[in-house]
Amino acid sequence: MAPPLVQRAAILGLGLMGGSLGLALREHGAAASVIGYDAAVGVAEAALGAGAVDEMARSVAACVTGADLVVLATPVVAMRPLMAEMAPYLSSGTLVTDLGSTKVEVMQWAADMRPRGVTFIGGHPMCGSERSGIEAATAAIFHGAVWCLTPQPTGGDTRTASLALLIQRLGALPRVVEAARHDQAMARVSHLPLVVAAALMRTVTAHEDAAFALSLAAGGLRDTTRVASGSPIMARDICLTNASALTAALDVHIALLQDLRAQIAAGDDPALLAHFDEARAARVAWLDGRGAGS
Amino acid sequence: MAPPLVQRAAILGLGLMGGSLGLALREHGAAASVIGYDAAVGVAEAALGAGAVDEMARSVAACVTGADLVVLATPVVAMRPLMAEMAPYLSSGTLVTDLGSTKVEVMQWAADMRPRGVTFIGGHPMCGSERSGIEAATAAIFHGAVWCLTPQPTGGDTRTASLALLIQRLGALPRVVEAARHDQAMARVSHLPLVVAAALMRTVTAHEDAAFALSLAAGGLRDTTRVASGSPIMARDICLTNASALTAALDVHIALLQDLRAQIAAGDDPALLAHFDEARAARVAWLDGRGAGS
Repeated sequence: MAPPLVQRAAILGLGLMGGSLGLALREHGAAASVIGYDAAVGVAEAALGAGAVDEMARSVAACVTGADLVVLATPVVAMRPLMAEMAPYLSSGTLVTDLGSTKVEVMQWAADMRPRGVTFIGGHPMCGSERSGIEAATAAIFHGAVWCLTPQPTGGDTRTASLALLIQRLGALPRVVEAARHDQAMARVSHLPLVVAAALMRTVTAHEDAAFALSLAAGGLRDTTRVASGSPIMARDICLTNASALTAALDVHIALLQDLRAQIAAGDDPALLAHFDEARAARVAWLDGRGAGS
Repeated sequence: MAPPLVQRAAILGLGLMGGSLGLALREHGAAASVIGYDAAVGVAEAALGAGAVDEMARSVAACVTGADLVVLATPVVAMRPLMAEMAPYLSSGTLVTDLGSTKVEVMQWAADMRPRGVTFIGGHPMCGSERSGIEAATAAIFHGAVWCLTPQPTGGDTRTASLALLIQRLGALPRVVEAARHDQAMARVSHLPLVVAAALMRTVTAHEDAAFALSLAAGGLRDTTRVASGSPIMARDICLTNASALTAALDVHIALLQDLRAQIAAGDDPALLAHFDEARAARVAWLDGRGAGS
């Protein structure tokens, strides 16, 4: 196996993403040792048992002290106090990154709090699961996944290259993007589907005959709402930290649904056919372009 | 193999659903012979080649003449003229059913046009695919699927039992439901997700940076929009024939999205968390109840 790229990787938060990262770092020998911390009772123990970390820390301070790589793997909102808590214990030269779903606010917090000599590069692996927690963690989650990196605007090119190398070692595809552009794009392709999937589920259950309807429901509802089974805290944090891009996306989406509602009420055959034709063509072109199947 | 339940089954429309039915009837020996017709050039030939029919007919009349079971497997709107076209050729005693996604209008057309001695029982197998056409047809599509039956209000109990037996032979689960209740339920658990999935895809492509966003998109968007790759004509026909239940469902859904939009803009942490908590709990309870995985 190739030599490790970092000596001591510290992971803060050992749920689906943090746990998967620990498993991947260890499986690929990318870190000489992995230490992990989780604020929830029993999670670090479970991560140790699952082989996601070599060692568990009893505090944030103990986790990051001496680490040359620190990864924030909590829901996004929790990262802000975590950054403040860990800052005094970071060594000069430490590279800090995160796995959060939104980047603009995270980058701002990091810029506000970054201690001298520490480099922060935002990160977002484009993968996940409707399952959550260390029980669902797997190194395979990163295989073939695009992993966005949002460096600070000034400097850090060699550090970004090092982090990209580590990400490649895990089987993922590093891609440097600008944080604002990332959040705008995610608002459409990830955060809006998440909000809508949960709203679809609630639209079903709001009906008086919901139990009957659900007893008939099949793969269409199951797939359309899959992401609504993910972590509610993660989803809420996405809404709280990407509010402006997400409300803009919702405005476009709601206006489209209102148009469709009018077309359905009017029996507007050509408009409805054009709607479904256009959506299908767009989806087929997208998936054909990436060779990702249906 | 058990003896056939019908002698000559005629299938009108040999796409995904009609083709799959032909394959299933033949695989399970449920019909002594299967004859099929499709108005599109080359489709009946492809169905014959795929083993979905024993024989292909050159006209609707030729297809239904002498059949003791006739199955309408076209998109819903096409069933109305088809019923008129085939009526003169149906023998007394023939059982007619369909595989359409909506039932109230289909039942009304059947009641208007039903020739003397012919029994019409609406049907809707709760299965499908984002693929369409005879190429995607498979007998396995019916395995374990609920298959709704909507008999005419008067009489036909023994005919319904016969049809239920045939459906069971194909590995599906027949369930007698009232047509209006079926359409109301489908509006929520099937038709709304279809409209919304297509609208999500169009919300993404409406953005100026859509190509970039789609290059980052992952499983969330893919699954949430899966049904948008299905047949546009089928989707349009659903909108045209279940308009009142579907617009009612859209009204509830749009109101919910407007609430969420306001909560996101206001950073309403507890309301947003409650939204995602409720949706997840509802989805988990639904899937736990049917043992259908995530």
